[in-house]
Amino acid sequence: MKQTDLFLKTKKQALKDDTSLNSQLLYRAGYIDKTMAGAYALLPLGLQLHNNICNIIRKEINLLNAQELKLNILTPKENWVKTDRWDNFDALFRFKSSYGSSFALGATHEEIITPLAKDFIKSYKDLPFALYQIQTKLRDEARPKGGMLRLREFTMKDLYSFHENRQDLDKYYEKVKKAYLKIFKQLKLKVYAVEASGETFSNLSHEFLTPLEIGEDEILVCEKDETHFCKKSDHGEIQTCPVCKSNIKKIKVAELAHIFKLETKFSKAFDVNYLDKQGKQNLVYMGCYGIGISRIIGILAEKFADDKGLSFPNSVAPFSIHLVPLYTKEAKVNKKIQDQILKIYDKLVKSNISVLYDNREVSNSIKLVESDLIGIPYRIVISEKTLENNSFEFKERNKKTAKIIPLKNFNEKLIK
Amino acid sequence: MKQTDLFLKTKKQALKDDTSLNSQLLYRAGYIDKTMAGAYALLPLGLQLHNNICNIIRKEINLLNAQELKLNILTPKENWVKTDRWDNFDALFRFKSSYGSSFALGATHEEIITPLAKDFIKSYKDLPFALYQIQTKLRDEARPKGGMLRLREFTMKDLYSFHENRQDLDKYYEKVKKAYLKIFKQLKLKVYAVEASGETFSNLSHEFLTPLEIGEDEILVCEKDETHFCKKSDHGEIQTCPVCKSNIKKIKVAELAHIFKLETKFSKAFDVNYLDKQGKQNLVYMGCYGIGISRIIGILAEKFADDKGLSFPNSVAPFSIHLVPLYTKEAKVNKKIQDQILKIYDKLVKSNISVLYDNREVSNSIKLVESDLIGIPYRIVISEKTLENNSFEFKERNKKTAKIIPLKNFNEKLIK
Repeated sequence: MKQTDLFLKTKKQALKDDTSLNSQLLYRAGYIDKTMAGAYALLPLGLQLHNNICNIIRKEINLLNAQELKLNILTPKENWVKTDRWDNFDALFRFKSSYGSSFALGATHEEIITPLAKDFIKSYKDLPFALYQIQTKLRDEARPKGGMLRLREFTMKDLYSFHENRQDLDKYYEKVKKAYLKIFKQLKLKVYAVEASGETFSNLSHEFLTPLEIGEDEILVCEKDETHFCKKSDHGEIQTCPVCKSNIKKIKVAELAHIFKLETKFSKAFDVNYLDKQGKQNLVYMGCYGIGISRIIGILAEKFADDKGLSFPNSVAPFSIHLVPLYTKEAKVNKKIQDQILKIYDKLVKSNISVLYDNREVSNSIKLVESDLIGIPYRIVISEKTLENNSFEFKERNKKTAKIIPLKNFNEKLIK
Repeated sequence: MKQTDLFLKTKKQALKDDTSLNSQLLYRAGYIDKTMAGAYALLPLGLQLHNNICNIIRKEINLLNAQELKLNILTPKENWVKTDRWDNFDALFRFKSSYGSSFALGATHEEIITPLAKDFIKSYKDLPFALYQIQTKLRDEARPKGGMLRLREFTMKDLYSFHENRQDLDKYYEKVKKAYLKIFKQLKLKVYAVEASGETFSNLSHEFLTPLEIGEDEILVCEKDETHFCKKSDHGEIQTCPVCKSNIKKIKVAELAHIFKLETKFSKAFDVNYLDKQGKQNLVYMGCYGIGISRIIGILAEKFADDKGLSFPNSVAPFSIHLVPLYTKEAKVNKKIQDQILKIYDKLVKSNISVLYDNREVSNSIKLVESDLIGIPYRIVISEKTLENNSFEFKERNKKTAKIIPLKNFNEKLIK
């Protein structure tokens, strides 16, 4: 895409009343706009980043034989009353229509998917199955903070599974865990899957946590081997590893995802039974599995940044390559440089590699500074100097130095 | 896809408290579930249909040099106060957070996109541009009705354009009109683009209306030539065409889309100016262009139906082909029939044609009745009888009779 065709303006001024590095960078680089505290709009660059993350998640979740659907954001009060959460879910947005009915906005969707699934379950033959959505969630947060890390409006992938019994739920739960690890690997996020004290839901759940300085949680980990000991820091303080006696280190972490064995909590509330082989009625076992997509945007921005700006992994970046021609001060455009850039541009487009071509008539320093700010993983620069040597400059955003590569060696395989 | 892998159960019972043909059929065929009056969940079949419609729209809108973004559903009160719509937009859901702030749910997004665009506009060089989203809208409807035709929660494509002056807005407006006609052609919906009396917004707008018995509006059209006369019936009653004196016919119609020349209404409210070539400040001209995606689902369901069920155009149907093996009463599965079906299935999958293979162990009549109900545009049946003649039965959902085609003539080009 040509940069003049992209709705993008980087900003010099900071975002008002917002102290987080991630939202400041995303705002200044043109990924987001702030609608209000806790609600950011995704601009075209931000939406592309968001969709790339969604597609990585979607691919792995589809492999779990889960099927995508779309539930409602507007949900009726009675469903929440049934589970006792109308009055007890703090972050639930509750309000009344002008015409009398009371609604909650979907903060999570157990109250909607459970009665929906009920209609599809008669006997053991209908189980197991799993359904998910990638949907906007709304929560009445007391203090939205951390930029994109604690939002009033955010995208979540929420998966729900339905089983005959505890054993089958356990099996699926482990599969989801593995799929999550694969997802976070592709997102280039180190992750700890830590047992959580699931106060809100059930007796067993895991949080997927990634090291982050501004993270809201802390974990305790064995310095020598994480498999020895890794717990949330509220599990009581300990000094040495119970397995190898090594020191325990504290790590600040942010939550990426949370999974729960709901067991029969919701099937009980909505009376969801199935007929087993013996003709007996049993409650259905459920699991639910969330991934916070908007906060992942914030975490990636916060984590993959330096003093020059953002630096996204290629798996999610809105573009893979930034093509930047540099011209001498006199010439606004040098035809030779432009021709070479366009040759490479065409080749990349034909190879289906997403590329942003900075065709703007602005100074070289503005091009380079903004390129670093936006954080596209690879940059190709062509200037008079590189052309003298029949070469181009190739720079990875997260490396200090560039390579000089002969033009004849240009190959779209440069991009990993 | 194999039907046993699809989250799909057709229903015999009707939807309670719902009298519309479209929602009844979509519910019974397993496309939707009803969350409450005015809010339906999209099940996997329904989501696929929805996404296919979105992609047709997205493709045409991208050709208008418009860029996709995603605004917030949660919007701050002050934006609506600025345009005087906090108190005057009847269908606006308004409520208060537990922590004091007042919000509206996005019923339309002029109040959000205008201040967002303001930041990007300094001079005439920044104009024109266009932004759109495919987003959930929420409206406090007094009486949701007509099934999917009047909803409290629905998907809308909303496009906003920003211009230097009226002339440039007019030009873009005409381009959008043409794009819309192309979209509705692909959706197989006959459409009238009729001048509307844009009470809510501006002095000029067009509604895109399609003939539908349960439609809420009525248009008057010259019997001989629609270009002679075509107006909404509230434009005063007339009996004969002012051009050719032919009779005027009344047609019941439903709204598919609505476009508006907003002119400077919103740029005035949010003080959105640009510097022209002469260095003078001018207000920006705006247009906005909506398409009601959820109601299109309802309209397609209502329109392309017969006494057996749904019948979607191939351009939007969740699958193109329904592969149905019929077995004799004795054999639950006939290996020869199954082998032939699987051969065709593989070939279609390899050709990237979306196909649903009814691999369930149910009676032949259930397969055929449910296939008609779901409304996949093409059906291929293989039975002992067809195999005797080395052939298969090929039936278009909207035709009365089937063709018998030799197996050796099977070709994915059968599907238009």
